[in-house]
Amino acid sequence: MTDKTANTMWGGRFAAGPDAIMEAINASIGFDQRMAAQDIAGSRAHAAMLGAVGIISPNDADTIREGLLTVLSEIEGGTFQFSTALEDIHMNVEARLKEVIGEPAGRLHTGRSRNDQVATDFKLWVRDQFDAAESGLLALIDALLAQAEAGADWVMPGFTHLQTAQPVTWGHHMMAYVEMLGRDLSRVRDARARMNESPLGAAALAGTSFPIDRDMTAQALGFDRPAANSLDAVSDRDFALEFLGVASICAMHLSRFAEELVIWSSAQFRFVTLSDRFSTGSSIMPQKKNPDAAELIRAKVGRIMGANVGLMMVMKGLPLAYSKDMQEDKEQVFDAADNWMLALAAMEGMVRDMTANRESLAAAAGAGFSTATDLADWLVRVLGMPFRDAHHVTGSLVAMAEAKGCDLPDLTLSDMQSVHGDITNAVFDVLGVQNSVNSRMSYGGTAPAQVRAQAERWRELLK
Amino acid sequence: MTDKTANTMWGGRFAAGPDAIMEAINASIGFDQRMAAQDIAGSRAHAAMLGAVGIISPNDADTIREGLLTVLSEIEGGTFQFSTALEDIHMNVEARLKEVIGEPAGRLHTGRSRNDQVATDFKLWVRDQFDAAESGLLALIDALLAQAEAGADWVMPGFTHLQTAQPVTWGHHMMAYVEMLGRDLSRVRDARARMNESPLGAAALAGTSFPIDRDMTAQALGFDRPAANSLDAVSDRDFALEFLGVASICAMHLSRFAEELVIWSSAQFRFVTLSDRFSTGSSIMPQKKNPDAAELIRAKVGRIMGANVGLMMVMKGLPLAYSKDMQEDKEQVFDAADNWMLALAAMEGMVRDMTANRESLAAAAGAGFSTATDLADWLVRVLGMPFRDAHHVTGSLVAMAEAKGCDLPDLTLSDMQSVHGDITNAVFDVLGVQNSVNSRMSYGGTAPAQVRAQAERWRELLK
Amino acid sequence: MTDKTANTMWGGRFAAGPDAIMEAINASIGFDQRMAAQDIAGSRAHAAMLGAVGIISPNDADTIREGLLTVLSEIEGGTFQFSTALEDIHMNVEARLKEVIGEPAGRLHTGRSRNDQVATDFKLWVRDQFDAAESGLLALIDALLAQAEAGADWVMPGFTHLQTAQPVTWGHHMMAYVEMLGRDLSRVRDARARMNESPLGAAALAGTSFPIDRDMTAQALGFDRPAANSLDAVSDRDFALEFLGVASICAMHLSRFAEELVIWSSAQFRFVTLSDRFSTGSSIMPQKKNPDAAELIRAKVGRIMGANVGLMMVMKGLPLAYSKDMQEDKEQVFDAADNWMLALAAMEGMVRDMTANRESLAAAAGAGFSTATDLADWLVRVLGMPFRDAHHVTGSLVAMAEAKGCDLPDLTLSDMQSVHGDITNAVFDVLGVQNSVNSRMSYGGTAPAQVRAQAERWRELLK
Amino acid sequence: MTDKTANTMWGGRFAAGPDAIMEAINASIGFDQRMAAQDIAGSRAHAAMLGAVGIISPNDADTIREGLLTVLSEIEGGTFQFSTALEDIHMNVEARLKEVIGEPAGRLHTGRSRNDQVATDFKLWVRDQFDAAESGLLALIDALLAQAEAGADWVMPGFTHLQTAQPVTWGHHMMAYVEMLGRDLSRVRDARARMNESPLGAAALAGTSFPIDRDMTAQALGFDRPAANSLDAVSDRDFALEFLGVASICAMHLSRFAEELVIWSSAQFRFVTLSDRFSTGSSIMPQKKNPDAAELIRAKVGRIMGANVGLMMVMKGLPLAYSKDMQEDKEQVFDAADNWMLALAAMEGMVRDMTANRESLAAAAGAGFSTATDLADWLVRVLGMPFRDAHHVTGSLVAMAEAKGCDLPDLTLSDMQSVHGDITNAVFDVLGVQNSVNSRMSYGGTAPAQVRAQAERWRELLK
Repeated sequence: MTDKTANTMWGGRFAAGPDAIMEAINASIGFDQRMAAQDIAGSRAHAAMLGAVGIISPNDADTIREGLLTVLSEIEGGTFQFSTALEDIHMNVEARLKEVIGEPAGRLHTGRSRNDQVATDFKLWVRDQFDAAESGLLALIDALLAQAEAGADWVMPGFTHLQTAQPVTWGHHMMAYVEMLGRDLSRVRDARARMNESPLGAAALAGTSFPIDRDMTAQALGFDRPAANSLDAVSDRDFALEFLGVASICAMHLSRFAEELVIWSSAQFRFVTLSDRFSTGSSIMPQKKNPDAAELIRAKVGRIMGANVGLMMVMKGLPLAYSKDMQEDKEQVFDAADNWMLALAAMEGMVRDMTANRESLAAAAGAGFSTATDLADWLVRVLGMPFRDAHHVTGSLVAMAEAKGCDLPDLTLSDMQSVHGDITNAVFDVLGVQNSVNSRMSYGGTAPAQVRAQAERWRELLK
Repeated sequence: MTDKTANTMWGGRFAAGPDAIMEAINASIGFDQRMAAQDIAGSRAHAAMLGAVGIISPNDADTIREGLLTVLSEIEGGTFQFSTALEDIHMNVEARLKEVIGEPAGRLHTGRSRNDQVATDFKLWVRDQFDAAESGLLALIDALLAQAEAGADWVMPGFTHLQTAQPVTWGHHMMAYVEMLGRDLSRVRDARARMNESPLGAAALAGTSFPIDRDMTAQALGFDRPAANSLDAVSDRDFALEFLGVASICAMHLSRFAEELVIWSSAQFRFVTLSDRFSTGSSIMPQKKNPDAAELIRAKVGRIMGANVGLMMVMKGLPLAYSKDMQEDKEQVFDAADNWMLALAAMEGMVRDMTANRESLAAAAGAGFSTATDLADWLVRVLGMPFRDAHHVTGSLVAMAEAKGCDLPDLTLSDMQSVHGDITNAVFDVLGVQNSVNSRMSYGGTAPAQVRAQAERWRELLK
Repeated sequence: MTDKTANTMWGGRFAAGPDAIMEAINASIGFDQRMAAQDIAGSRAHAAMLGAVGIISPNDADTIREGLLTVLSEIEGGTFQFSTALEDIHMNVEARLKEVIGEPAGRLHTGRSRNDQVATDFKLWVRDQFDAAESGLLALIDALLAQAEAGADWVMPGFTHLQTAQPVTWGHHMMAYVEMLGRDLSRVRDARARMNESPLGAAALAGTSFPIDRDMTAQALGFDRPAANSLDAVSDRDFALEFLGVASICAMHLSRFAEELVIWSSAQFRFVTLSDRFSTGSSIMPQKKNPDAAELIRAKVGRIMGANVGLMMVMKGLPLAYSKDMQEDKEQVFDAADNWMLALAAMEGMVRDMTANRESLAAAAGAGFSTATDLADWLVRVLGMPFRDAHHVTGSLVAMAEAKGCDLPDLTLSDMQSVHGDITNAVFDVLGVQNSVNSRMSYGGTAPAQVRAQAERWRELLK
Repeated sequence: MTDKTANTMWGGRFAAGPDAIMEAINASIGFDQRMAAQDIAGSRAHAAMLGAVGIISPNDADTIREGLLTVLSEIEGGTFQFSTALEDIHMNVEARLKEVIGEPAGRLHTGRSRNDQVATDFKLWVRDQFDAAESGLLALIDALLAQAEAGADWVMPGFTHLQTAQPVTWGHHMMAYVEMLGRDLSRVRDARARMNESPLGAAALAGTSFPIDRDMTAQALGFDRPAANSLDAVSDRDFALEFLGVASICAMHLSRFAEELVIWSSAQFRFVTLSDRFSTGSSIMPQKKNPDAAELIRAKVGRIMGANVGLMMVMKGLPLAYSKDMQEDKEQVFDAADNWMLALAAMEGMVRDMTANRESLAAAAGAGFSTATDLADWLVRVLGMPFRDAHHVTGSLVAMAEAKGCDLPDLTLSDMQSVHGDITNAVFDVLGVQNSVNSRMSYGGTAPAQVRAQAERWRELLK
């Protein structure tokens, strides 16, 4: 065996030798530049505090804060030159600050270290994503509520095992996702509140002997309070893991709805028509409409849960306090956040644009004796029959209808009474899909009135 | 190639043919019997409600409720005969109830279905585990607080990259884990509150036409309210996924502490002595003490996060409402819960029993010029030197101490002044590990006073 | 807040205190008794070798080997008393051996340790599962081949994006899974060959000074050779991880087919009828047939991949050689193996029993102008038109057919020529689904002749 | 609650509305441009075949092949303008080809589709990565062999549970990783061989009616044969999953070694000194040397296994044939491949550069009566004592040495004989760490001669 060719290829990739390899594995500026705004906000708050408590002069504080704004506008304007040799966003910003304002730049890093700085930056970035997720969830819930309100009484099959079980309403189905996304929203808010503690001032790991005011920087950055243990503050990535956990569950919800949209778009179901904007066609098969966006959304839970696994594995068994392993936190979260937001936005767009095919839905809702359980329930409720007997009678009536090639409501009263003499005309009030859904008035049931009440409750909650 | 032998082996395993295979893959009684108490509690609440609203007679309700108690005591007493043919705990209980009380047993299942029943049982079971986790977390926090209070001023090395960075206190290190577990506790409580909605009465998926009172059963079972959408109520496993997510993060915290205990127990570190109860020895190597419990705890995050992945993958892309895939939820959660509780209990026991080796800790804390940053900070703070200059002076003094084979506090004032003339005797107040830790009085810092204050805060919070 | 009640509950679970907790977390006999046969086989091979090389007397070797058979028959007969105090299967067996044969039992453990013993046992167990998986795969492939051979020319829609794209044959679709399972088989064999090295004689971690013959024990146990590095031999769990990786990919394949079976069983598709043995019905809805087995199979990839994640996380970052963390390997693999075998067996049964609904398949295959690409290809192939022009002409003809409410083969030649004058009667040879599939004669294409050839190739390969 | 601000932020991100969202979620050119070389190689092979079998003219084939080279050099030269509107690399290349060569470009896509094209491109890309991994593994094995050969007889502690168990040799420890990486190499080769089948010509999913020669394109692209089922060929992502599985196990191995390097670099262990190139220092703490590269390598298994989970979850439950979900395959694999190669290269560099601290290793090897088992083995082997008795005698001797404050070899013969009269001077041949390791001559044991033999075996194998 010879590895000659292989070595050449290998050598090509890492031709510059060990130093190039170390720079490639060590530098984070390639990705952490996304936290530039957060880094500068953190430094500005820190400088203001250093000035306020007298660790640096008010003049220096002002100069630093102004200089940082200059650096920020360079970055936002795209004129900033990022340097891999300077490793990360923190050192890139600080080096440029030095060029812009000179000596006072050297006083900025007093009473903090890169460990608490990166924790602060990353927390601010993740917090912004929680806020973006809240917005995305609210927008998607709004789109679902609009569908639910429009179709509160449109009947469709309710499935278990993808087999028609009982009729439900379109609005009811939409509201099921509102409930899921409502829990997602609740998780987003809980997680955001829990993580909103400032690591700034934890310094390298032990706190500092400078008389810093951590409450002041916490408040300036919108944190609820400073983190209470400096070792924990620089070692903690719970907020990132919880973000990924919350995102994963939400992405799973989206995957379920996306799966339904794919199935519902098939020629066999035709329950829904997606807009051209969120699907692609075929130049020669006019009826083909590929639900690309739905498929891509369905897939997103994979990479988001993958990121969750990835970061959990990184953190497993890490001794305190900071270890370089933790630098692997950002790319996972950046990618997951981008894809979560994209999936929410695409799903919102699809939901707003999609059209329920009411005729297909209604036809399918009535097929397969889907109101047989309504009949059995009537026998129990009205005639006081035990459950098992009611099932037996229902089974006989379904068999009769099947033999006649008709549906249950098409049987006559005498047909019915030939099976059980006590059946009255009132039974027809529960047969037929519209009667069926109307009758399910238990709290949270599929009756249109229940659906409208729930939609209203959500509108109120989100006002 | 021939598969003859293979087929024989294969045949051996599934000799009884398709029916045996279907029973093996389909029946859940092997594991869901763990929910017997929850199943019976749910049925008793349902029966009481059916009686109260008049769907069944008060007499039947009482008979059913009494009969269920009989069944429960048979199960608790170990005399109950579980049957695989009856598939699951619900049918096992109901069949036995029929034997015990006869005909009224057939009325119990009115206005509900197996779909909302299993969701209710499983939620009750998971809720109990949240409560058990809360207890376990509180007990472990208590053990850590005791260690922190005892060793608020014991010095030890604070590590970054497993390299000594700065001295910290034993108490401070213990309190870092209190913070982590405190967040775990907060997640447990948030998740428990979020999941505390009753699926009971959602029926198969659409609600019911019986005039059931879902608030009444919700209240009887300790739920805050009924779930608001029946499709969602039977399709939702968020509570299980969130349980696994919360457990995973907590298990990750435990893995970090366990890793430290393993390292600290090595002959090279000797920072801590674990009790014999949580370690195993060697019959011929008296100094060998294997930290078995710590190693097993370190591993637990694997299976718990594995369960999280497993259930997320099961739920991915499932159309509404109930699909049989969801039966795969329980074993994952049962195993994760058992192992989480066990890990918490074992960690609590280890923490209570373990002895810090104060001399080893103190010796390690002082090694490696660990107070060099204190010296640099003093130069900045007291002499007003810029950060970079202070680092340069400190580097020279460390080099001098290294050349003399002594530590920084062993240099004389004139040694110091030979490097920088402005240094005064006051510098010695920050050198030495005890001075170092005492000086880190910033909020959340490692100073013993800070540690004691934080311990007190937690004692107050948990009172 | 008070944790009084909580502590009671907690206490209830671990009432017996630290010793009970340590026993609960430490003992493995609850699960590793499944390796009893492997443990005894390993010990018998070891004893024979010790006798053969003269480390123990031939007499002792024989006594030990006989005694172990006695223990084995006690275990197989269900009369063996497992003891948790004896921790694991190894010590349970050895203790019983001592009771059975007395003093020579103490000589068995010469030149080995529990570390190489458990590695050997577990490898033997996993190797058996590779063999069982091979059998299961072969049986399932056989069932698929039978379906493919029967339906080599039954037409059905070929989907992309769950939209009808082009007609394919039932046999072709079945053969796609044969290819996937064939790769699974190949992975099983590669992995089995790779792992087939004997750890026995690696001793604790360093080898031994006894003149053992590792080749002899390796051969006796069916290993290809002894493992070449004793540190690696006791630290290695690659074989378990590779088993889980191979199983995960296979379970993913099964999940795809299971998903198709669920969709195909829906009232909307009706492509397939599953047998009653692998589905469950409804007492009152005769047409409802829940594909329970398919759904459960679809879910299995979750727990198997979850086990893969779990064990990978356990092994991450473990220093050499043996650490107790590795005891967490077995339950994951046991559960994954059981469920993989069960899924294979259930899928095989379903495939053998299922009936393709040829009319539904054929009707769906022809819908939606599914042969439009055949027409376009004909224009390119026969008339030499550039691809884009051919697409344009085809689009016009499809639009014409759609306007006339007919399918492409129903257009007349003059209809065709009104769009493009060069079209000849020969075009009708490629229109219609049967013509379409017949024409796809490229290697691996859907033409019945291709399907039959591939089925024959597989039959030959597996002979 | 108001979502006004939120909506603005949200709106900011997706200001351009649905079309921008769809483009963002749908286009793959942002990442799949990495497959440009593979795409062009595939198209050139396809064009040559189309010309050879007469589907297009030889002239057109040549023109296309030349034009593609022009496009390739534009891409390699960095002058190519990628367009998101053209979605993916395939359409970007084809559109540019049209500009370069005009009409014949439209004939290239005959007899293939984007589905087989993307499968071919991605397979070629992954195959290159298998080759790169082979090179990286060989280079790292070479570095480890060099360490093993240099230190075949350097003694160090062998650990179990991170507790000293028995002395081993440095070379033996290095060779343990050679074995692991050797298995990785074997997995790489098996997986590469298994995946080396050409999807090209499977067309959309059903094969084609053009008389294409799939063997010819397969051979031109270095594939062993064409894939045998067209449905499978476009639906299969096993090769990507197996790549991730193989990479995960290898990354786990690297994480174990990295963990050891981190622990060995601590002040408490000082077993190894890493070069400055792969660690970072502190400006004021001269002895501090952070093992950054080792920590980052330790973390890589997280993202690689995360990618494995991510793609497995994407593929779970996907019906045949192509679904858009599968577009989520590339970024996961790209990221995993980059990080695997980087980790291999960085580990190779570290291993080549690192220095074993022989004195620390030797001192630690002898501590803690690490040769007690050698003594016990001697008693069994030479005196014929039963194992348990030998352990008892050894325990007494260790206790005696401990009481005297010396190690076992420091006891006198009469000391020894006071515990057991039969002990002779020969016992001293096995005491002391060098004697201990020399004695472990069983195959694969830690004796220097064994280590050298294994290193030689590997040198031979890799020649």
